[in-house]
Amino acid sequence: MESAVVKQIDALFNPKSIAVVGASNNPAKWGFGIFNDLLNKGFAGKLYPVTRSEEKISNIAAYSNIKDIPEPVDLVCIVVPAHYVPAVMEDCAEKGVKSAIIITAGFREVGEEGKKLEEEVLGIAREAGIRFVGPNCFGIVNTSANISSMGLLSPYAIPRIPGGSIGIISQSGNAGGYLLGIGAQQGLKFSKFVSSGNETDLHFEDYLEYFLWDPETKVIVGYVEGLKDGRRFLEVARETTKRKPVVVLKVGRTKSGSKAAHSHTGSLAGSESFYAAAFKQTGVICVSEIADVLDVAVAAAYQPIPRGNRVGIVTIGGGFGVIAADACEKQGLEVPSLTDETINRLSKWLPPHWSHSNPVDMVGTLDKTYACIGSVLKDENVDAVLTIASLGFPSGAALEGYPKEFREMAQAYARQMEELELSEGVTGLLERIKRYGKPVIAGVSGSLLGVVEEPKAVKVLRENGLVIYPTPERGAKVLSYLVKYGEYLRGLEGTR
Amino acid sequence: MESAVVKQIDALFNPKSIAVVGASNNPAKWGFGIFNDLLNKGFAGKLYPVTRSEEKISNIAAYSNIKDIPEPVDLVCIVVPAHYVPAVMEDCAEKGVKSAIIITAGFREVGEEGKKLEEEVLGIAREAGIRFVGPNCFGIVNTSANISSMGLLSPYAIPRIPGGSIGIISQSGNAGGYLLGIGAQQGLKFSKFVSSGNETDLHFEDYLEYFLWDPETKVIVGYVEGLKDGRRFLEVARETTKRKPVVVLKVGRTKSGSKAAHSHTGSLAGSESFYAAAFKQTGVICVSEIADVLDVAVAAAYQPIPRGNRVGIVTIGGGFGVIAADACEKQGLEVPSLTDETINRLSKWLPPHWSHSNPVDMVGTLDKTYACIGSVLKDENVDAVLTIASLGFPSGAALEGYPKEFREMAQAYARQMEELELSEGVTGLLERIKRYGKPVIAGVSGSLLGVVEEPKAVKVLRENGLVIYPTPERGAKVLSYLVKYGEYLRGLEGTR
Repeated sequence: MESAVVKQIDALFNPKSIAVVGASNNPAKWGFGIFNDLLNKGFAGKLYPVTRSEEKISNIAAYSNIKDIPEPVDLVCIVVPAHYVPAVMEDCAEKGVKSAIIITAGFREVGEEGKKLEEEVLGIAREAGIRFVGPNCFGIVNTSANISSMGLLSPYAIPRIPGGSIGIISQSGNAGGYLLGIGAQQGLKFSKFVSSGNETDLHFEDYLEYFLWDPETKVIVGYVEGLKDGRRFLEVARETTKRKPVVVLKVGRTKSGSKAAHSHTGSLAGSESFYAAAFKQTGVICVSEIADVLDVAVAAAYQPIPRGNRVGIVTIGGGFGVIAADACEKQGLEVPSLTDETINRLSKWLPPHWSHSNPVDMVGTLDKTYACIGSVLKDENVDAVLTIASLGFPSGAALEGYPKEFREMAQAYARQMEELELSEGVTGLLERIKRYGKPVIAGVSGSLLGVVEEPKAVKVLRENGLVIYPTPERGAKVLSYLVKYGEYLRGLEGTR
Repeated sequence: MESAVVKQIDALFNPKSIAVVGASNNPAKWGFGIFNDLLNKGFAGKLYPVTRSEEKISNIAAYSNIKDIPEPVDLVCIVVPAHYVPAVMEDCAEKGVKSAIIITAGFREVGEEGKKLEEEVLGIAREAGIRFVGPNCFGIVNTSANISSMGLLSPYAIPRIPGGSIGIISQSGNAGGYLLGIGAQQGLKFSKFVSSGNETDLHFEDYLEYFLWDPETKVIVGYVEGLKDGRRFLEVARETTKRKPVVVLKVGRTKSGSKAAHSHTGSLAGSESFYAAAFKQTGVICVSEIADVLDVAVAAAYQPIPRGNRVGIVTIGGGFGVIAADACEKQGLEVPSLTDETINRLSKWLPPHWSHSNPVDMVGTLDKTYACIGSVLKDENVDAVLTIASLGFPSGAALEGYPKEFREMAQAYARQMEELELSEGVTGLLERIKRYGKPVIAGVSGSLLGVVEEPKAVKVLRENGLVIYPTPERGAKVLSYLVKYGEYLRGLEGTR
């Protein structure tokens, strides 16, 4: 089941000791951030700074060579300039190191000379049985082992990458780092991350296989400039998407983009028709822009995959209903009629002038959102619900400037709404999503936007994988990807 | 120059006294939020609660009828149920009121009976010379007069709508409220807002003409379900776009969306080809989704309109460069070669392995962003710059958990970066944008995303209209709209 490379990558992600070659006390250098990040984020193993320029790094005695370290070293993280890297790899070989991360750039992506240097490094590593990440990358994150080689990026921008179940494989360090950063901001949680760089040794396909078998990873997202081993990708991807969703952003799709990709990681983007066919054949969800990546990943991981394309829309107001209906149709989704049973049930809760059709326009009703979503979700004409309604009433923290009496009345009402949401709304909805096996996708929570703080109900939903997307269009787009993934999975059942 | 309707709307937006019919002490009712919003947001004029149910509203003596108010009333805001509205309008006529806002829903959009009611109200108003907003709307905001009839939405969700120069005309209350809320969150500032509802009396075209002549409004954004007077729109829009940009989201473009729009405001969406032609002929920037509306508005208002479609890309890392190049090409923008002069200048500042081509991949360089953008902007092959680089270094507030020594070193470095940005970077860039007459559009500031606080440099840029969009794709999309607007304006010059 698990191939040799899976075990090797697992060792790389779970070292007992790490040496940082090029560790530094200068905050402008990568060796500063990387070493301190490992030192201060709770890595339980041994950590060794290696440098010739300073005696101590962050008050820890430095070694001038890995070979001088008296204990065994599992993982070496290399941040010295490119022309020193072959010598460091030689040292790793002599020391008996089995895993390395080469952060350093200036290899194949800069031309012939760099390419030679890169091949030299690969030769040394192959001979010694060393597997390595990079070069020209940000390295790895393993949240469960408190390991991050993200360096400067991480301590300044992401205090701590929250542990969870989204795994990221990125052929771009900055795009990958962006996903971690923006994801953490949105409250998403990650299992493992790898910025794969030039992929001189370990490839995208290798990491994909590793993440397939990684029990901590429930959904895999990838940023792809080019794949080196198309056949292997097809094989591994087909196996993976049966067990967990794979969401990929393929870039370098245009002439300008492909040229830029070549100068970035030296990758040849290859034929776009190959990639389109490969993703389609293997059930990989191929999204069209970076904003989609995490949006789709979290829904695919935590929501039921819809069995069809018929969407019930539940909206606080007509405008969002129109936007949502437009967006659904543009994305190839259907906005069907609801059954009389549903219409009658909704009429009991909503004011007489509600829309009496799909989209369900609740005409400003704030306290029936959960009930309405539940009813529409149950409707046999509906495979999924897209909601743009108030899922969580703001607590009234924004009311500080108001007179006491007003504030007290308004906040009391807000508390009442919150209780209603938390007591029946949220738990009931989560239970129904499971029972009916249909997803609920939220684009904007109500028109009560601009809220200063996140309502509690929204937080609970998010923690259960029901994320609120910023616009109805984004929600519809996410749903369309889920629908396609569902079609693929049903196709598999059909061929069994 | 200014027609009668412009003066009438100006009176509506600048009343000296306002009565709220249906004011309430019950926080669940619109009459609560609306009255208290007016009361507590600094409106300098007289404010009268009108209700039969209570003696005082928020401790202010209430009148049971507008006619009982001893002083003149300039504007009446109506929030009583639909069937009471004709009687209230009669009272307004008798009182000599000239402006009204009918928040109440349940008119034409609910069917024949509501339509009759609506016509009755219109008849009374016409006879008395009363101009009114709505019904079925959220009313107006005039930030310079501290007037907001947004009710519940506003105090809970938007502490105070910040005064500035974006004007909004929305045929949807919730979509319009969303734009105000999300805009305030993003630090954008607004002149005036109107949720036009069913447009029984005043139409989109009327507000457009008013905003055309409003000196406080520099850019007009619109949410449109359907226009009632196509010919008048063409006339007013053509005049407006010469003086200020108009950005419109037209919805109800699909079958499902058009059906939803009809049940929302009773509007008939009309022929899509008419709208496409109308917007093109008049230079109205017609965007494709709600997220574009403010993105484009702020750029169109504050940045030079590009004279061509050639984009220089300046990126912190290769991945974002590839994404940006793909996005530009997809949006019909060109990614041209840079002149040798520019390449040589950039080579002085960047590490040897920088990309030496467009996109300019600064390979992680943090302190040369402003210099590089300036050089690329100057390049004669370039009409605009799209940047995905570090415009503002995080202050290090996220480092609180780190040991003192590390934190001090890292924060000292952050301060150094900040000084550099603020002393030369920002002011120099803003000056160059003016000098060259070319826009700079930012999609993500560096890969240093996930930052806890907004860097000072980014704040200064934002206050000068250089907003940072969340992704390179969003930035490229904004740029493509500006390019099309520029083509339209140059076409006008050609025909003079």
